[in-house]
Amino acid sequence: MPINPNASIEITAFRWVPEPVQGLVRDLRARWALEEVGLDYRVRLLDQQRPPEYLLEQPFDQVPCFSDGKVRIFETGAIVQYIGEQSEVLLPRDAQGRYRAIQWSYAALNSVEPALLNLVLIDFFYTGEEWAKLRRPGAEEFARLKLRRVSDWLGDKQWLEGGRFTIGDVMMVTVLRFVRHTGLVAGFPNLDAYLKRGEARPAFKRALADQLATYKQHEAEGAAA
Amino acid sequence: MPINPNASIEITAFRWVPEPVQGLVRDLRARWALEEVGLDYRVRLLDQQRPPEYLLEQPFDQVPCFSDGKVRIFETGAIVQYIGEQSEVLLPRDAQGRYRAIQWSYAALNSVEPALLNLVLIDFFYTGEEWAKLRRPGAEEFARLKLRRVSDWLGDKQWLEGGRFTIGDVMMVTVLRFVRHTGLVAGFPNLDAYLKRGEARPAFKRALADQLATYKQHEAEGAAA
Repeated sequence: MPINPNASIEITAFRWVPEPVQGLVRDLRARWALEEVGLDYRVRLLDQQRPPEYLLEQPFDQVPCFSDGKVRIFETGAIVQYIGEQSEVLLPRDAQGRYRAIQWSYAALNSVEPALLNLVLIDFFYTGEEWAKLRRPGAEEFARLKLRRVSDWLGDKQWLEGGRFTIGDVMMVTVLRFVRHTGLVAGFPNLDAYLKRGEARPAFKRALADQLATYKQHEAEGAAA
Repeated sequence: MPINPNASIEITAFRWVPEPVQGLVRDLRARWALEEVGLDYRVRLLDQQRPPEYLLEQPFDQVPCFSDGKVRIFETGAIVQYIGEQSEVLLPRDAQGRYRAIQWSYAALNSVEPALLNLVLIDFFYTGEEWAKLRRPGAEEFARLKLRRVSDWLGDKQWLEGGRFTIGDVMMVTVLRFVRHTGLVAGFPNLDAYLKRGEARPAFKRALADQLATYKQHEAEGAAA
């Protein structure tokens, strides 16, 4: 099990988050990549109310941060890419294979995630607001267009670049999970199968189980806060 | 001048775009990075209506794509990072310096750009729609929060990681330009000075001039279309 209190790699994560976002918080990506590569890590837990000095580590006040004694970085795209560089498991060594994977990491975060997160905001954070009701059909249509683009690209490939699982898939699968409260991904059978293939990986299952176990352990404090 | 019809590097760009987005289209990032590093490139121009087969190169139907005979990639984050890897000018060689720069490239695209692009959508694409009117104050507040986070991090540093200009700055400066139609960046004097410092770089000026010259050259066809 890669969680090890004496590991040199440390990530930050939340002690507890409300149910709708459990299993979606971004430290999942770092955990998953670490599990795939087989690197031990320890977790520094944060309360929902982060101390002001956390901004010096993470200027956008989010999780995770990553450190390993060599680098200290934030942003899951960079963290997962860095983890990928530690072995050939997640990031091919040849220039084309390497940059196709990096390109999909950026694409997941910049060309897909914003459209899907917009639906999460509308459905969970701005519920009941008039603009959210008026905007929802258009926002859903835009999210569906982005999913169609990925589905069309994917075709009958196993992973985004064919037979090989990469950091691009770590990012894309976790991005697709953001709209799990809708039936949008299921509207594209090949994309749905891709998502399920990602979630069926043993490394993903361990990463998710560890994230959820922490929330479970701190449920009483979380609910009281 | 890096534009050279016989260059091995090719990027795609639009022949013409409407005035509000001139100087914002993302091929600017690739052009700027190429100018900083001093690599020749040629441009393959596309009409606003791309041919269906362009999706095989760029699944999200955007510009730019990049190829150099070794790699063929899309997504400006990946393209600028790849260009950065060709020399030490934009990407430090040590692990920490390198990944701090990569982290800022991802941060610009994922933690800042979506909030700013949301204002662009509201102000230019959904003008007059009821949800856009209702949403605008909140969207502006969210964009301002993101800018405050970057401003607080920046402090009195010259660039995001101190004295050295990196790919992270290429991405962040071009992201900040998205809200040029508002006074938002000017509300943070250090961020405003940072943006102007970026735009004053000779490489940026050449990249922008070349992008705009193409639009000027095709203005008649563009306006007629």
